[in-house]
Amino acid sequence: MLASCIVDLTHAFGPGQPRWSGFHDEQRESALSMENDGISADYHRLVGSWGTHVDAPAEMIPGGRTIDQLSPAELVLPLAVIDLSAAVAADPDRCLQWEDVKRWEADHGPIPSGSFVALRTDWSQRWPSQEAMRNLDGDGVAHTPGWTLEALRHVIVERAATAIGHETIDTDPGVYTSTDALSGTLPREDTRRQYACEAYVLDHDRYQVELLAHLDRVPALGAHIVVGVGKAHGGTAFPARVLALCPP
Amino acid sequence: MLASCIVDLTHAFGPGQPRWSGFHDEQRESALSMENDGISADYHRLVGSWGTHVDAPAEMIPGGRTIDQLSPAELVLPLAVIDLSAAVAADPDRCLQWEDVKRWEADHGPIPSGSFVALRTDWSQRWPSQEAMRNLDGDGVAHTPGWTLEALRHVIVERAATAIGHETIDTDPGVYTSTDALSGTLPREDTRRQYACEAYVLDHDRYQVELLAHLDRVPALGAHIVVGVGKAHGGTAFPARVLALCPP
Repeated sequence: MLASCIVDLTHAFGPGQPRWSGFHDEQRESALSMENDGISADYHRLVGSWGTHVDAPAEMIPGGRTIDQLSPAELVLPLAVIDLSAAVAADPDRCLQWEDVKRWEADHGPIPSGSFVALRTDWSQRWPSQEAMRNLDGDGVAHTPGWTLEALRHVIVERAATAIGHETIDTDPGVYTSTDALSGTLPREDTRRQYACEAYVLDHDRYQVELLAHLDRVPALGAHIVVGVGKAHGGTAFPARVLALCPP
Repeated sequence: MLASCIVDLTHAFGPGQPRWSGFHDEQRESALSMENDGISADYHRLVGSWGTHVDAPAEMIPGGRTIDQLSPAELVLPLAVIDLSAAVAADPDRCLQWEDVKRWEADHGPIPSGSFVALRTDWSQRWPSQEAMRNLDGDGVAHTPGWTLEALRHVIVERAATAIGHETIDTDPGVYTSTDALSGTLPREDTRRQYACEAYVLDHDRYQVELLAHLDRVPALGAHIVVGVGKAHGGTAFPARVLALCPP
């Protein structure tokens, strides 16, 4: 047996769900109907970064690899889950620090080389409320957790993680991304500043998964993750079916 | 280690690829650009049955399960591959018979309960040519291989397979589906007659994967398949990333 249990780390996607404010909602249109054709089929118009999805290096790095250029071996990885949920419950602006990673390693040993490192915040339990996911204050600033460059450097450079993932819409905390990111028309320098953590991941030729679900149902270490991302030729991002296989 | 090798059974998808004639081609439109925004993102408009994809029971069965209602346990299965490629090379209308399944079982033992049964025809090597995939004769009749109801009855009812898959656009052979299927506006009775094998699969609450690739690279028995289908809420079909994990 390959796994003792299989945990679905994926939100079902559809119109009206939480999304990055610069993107349009998903649109659906009937292609064939049960009544007229005996077959039910729909067209979906959606942005690549839709629901639980993969961002490939090409999303922010000129000449970076696209979704279809990720190798199959990069899509099936040992899964390490770092739990920051208690701290985030107390402070939604809380970000993963290097100290948090060190504390995890004190309990579980060094993050295995070639892992998928997932940041658990239980933020996914706010889905499907766009308002709760974005958590704006009166000034329009989002209070959502994220990564720090220090933690990413440790995970990606020192521990040679193959990919990372999180439950929020962005890698970076809301206090950075929401300053004036919501217009959808950022000058390029601002994009790099506000999305510094995401750019760091992609610039190291790594991919990431955003809007993961149910990380509370998998062990801190021992499971494998399978990232079944749609193989869009030349795509920079696409929805993925992400499954965790628990150890047999 | 979870697997000794990982084989990608998925075609990359994009505009211009082979498709069922009643569906529109994929359309892409820029959402954000590297030049203006520092981020490259596209909208995709595509039919659920696009590229290597899953068909859920709801595609042809009123009240049947949709894509998001398939359980995670149904997406990770032992893989049995029945090789009909030599016979199809000699006769493109060749369909999988009960006798073929019996011959496979004489070599490998009974198909394990709960398997994913894939029909290998090497038809996927005609991708990405729509003309070669459809293989029309002068009268507009498609000569493409398929399943038979007898073989499906054995696989699904007697061997309790959880899902099936094939390399062609349709479960049924082209000589049935192309009679007047290309208009995209079939009366419902005709749909059920021309797509009898597909309807049989879905009517038994099973799902299927179409347009699989690289079945020539996996063993007849011993690998596992992971069907990473996009989790479209209420969807009847959606592109999937399909990986085979070879035994360690």
